[in-house]
Amino acid sequence: MRSKFDEQLENLNKALIQMGALCEEAIENSAGALMTGNFELAEKAIMIDEKIDQKEREIENLCLRLLLQQQPVAGDLRLISAALKMITDMERIGDQAADISDIIIIGKIRAENGTLYIGDMANATIKMVTQSIDAFVNRDLKLAVAVIDYDDAVDELFTRVRNELIKRIENKTVNGEYAIDLIMIAKYFERIGDHATNIAEWVEFAITGRHRGEGDA
Amino acid sequence: MRSKFDEQLENLNKALIQMGALCEEAIENSAGALMTGNFELAEKAIMIDEKIDQKEREIENLCLRLLLQQQPVAGDLRLISAALKMITDMERIGDQAADISDIIIIGKIRAENGTLYIGDMANATIKMVTQSIDAFVNRDLKLAVAVIDYDDAVDELFTRVRNELIKRIENKTVNGEYAIDLIMIAKYFERIGDHATNIAEWVEFAITGRHRGEGDA
Repeated sequence: MRSKFDEQLENLNKALIQMGALCEEAIENSAGALMTGNFELAEKAIMIDEKIDQKEREIENLCLRLLLQQQPVAGDLRLISAALKMITDMERIGDQAADISDIIIIGKIRAENGTLYIGDMANATIKMVTQSIDAFVNRDLKLAVAVIDYDDAVDELFTRVRNELIKRIENKTVNGEYAIDLIMIAKYFERIGDHATNIAEWVEFAITGRHRGEGDA
Repeated sequence: MRSKFDEQLENLNKALIQMGALCEEAIENSAGALMTGNFELAEKAIMIDEKIDQKEREIENLCLRLLLQQQPVAGDLRLISAALKMITDMERIGDQAADISDIIIIGKIRAENGTLYIGDMANATIKMVTQSIDAFVNRDLKLAVAVIDYDDAVDELFTRVRNELIKRIENKTVNGEYAIDLIMIAKYFERIGDHATNIAEWVEFAITGRHRGEGDA
């Protein structure tokens, strides 16, 4: 029984890595659309979000089968519970990449000079997602904690975008629709960072059995 | 066994009503702070959010006890699963009322004339939360569907706030920080509406066994 269980656990790891990779791809495409004005990338992010939703259901089923058929011991139970929570956060990351893409397509917007650290936000959140999944797969507590700490950098970037936009509104050097769209997009990236933090907190829980508080994103 | 189960199910109903009432109170207080400039109301919303978090854990434990001890039949299992999902959405509504309050306190902002349909957003979302919980307790499918349909009204109000702010930025008749803060607040109210919609969709699932798609908020 145990070796069957370990095999299914290995499948769970693989599926989580795939779902994480899809999240990264969705973020990359929505950020790419924003930076280059290539709206096809935004369409692509929306399609990837659908794949992420499918992957969530697939992993949910896998976890439920593991729970029902294998009667896992406490440590494995924690691992599976953590996986179930993580995929909820990954699903929301996909939603947010799609939301960003919707704004880009509807508003036909492209990031102007001076608001480009929104690209840094995208890169930072991609890194957080990758590392949080790596931390799960390798049971790497140190990496999980690093992801959690790194969220401050994303929050700091959001504040910079916000302040830049406020300055431009005050200077009357910004289009109103652009300003409103861009602050929304920055907020979605900030929330992606929050969800990546949640994922890392669930990894921490899977390893240590302690959770620092439910996800607030 | 069944009567003990029914008694615990009744406790679950009561706890959900209490949690719903706390959500309404949190929204009311954050909206009140925004409309009147009374920041104590914003502080109160933040305290209520903590009570909501406690209530979530209480209900989660109640649901897990029901699942483990009573071996529920399919219909009851669906009811308990729905309750577990509903409290996640209610917990997020509490977070968002607290987030609105944070913005109000930090930015010392108060809604100016002409952006007052943000008050309508608050009232609309309070109504949605109340009715979705009522729908659960009374197994009222029609009411659940009405809540889901009503979300369009909240989205429409968000668009009005957005357009008004864009116009003011273009007219150069708005303070930049105020504009950015207010669109964030409007977005949080819109998300509260999304979560109330999710709750109503879980009620629909509890009654019919069909779910129209995972919550996207």
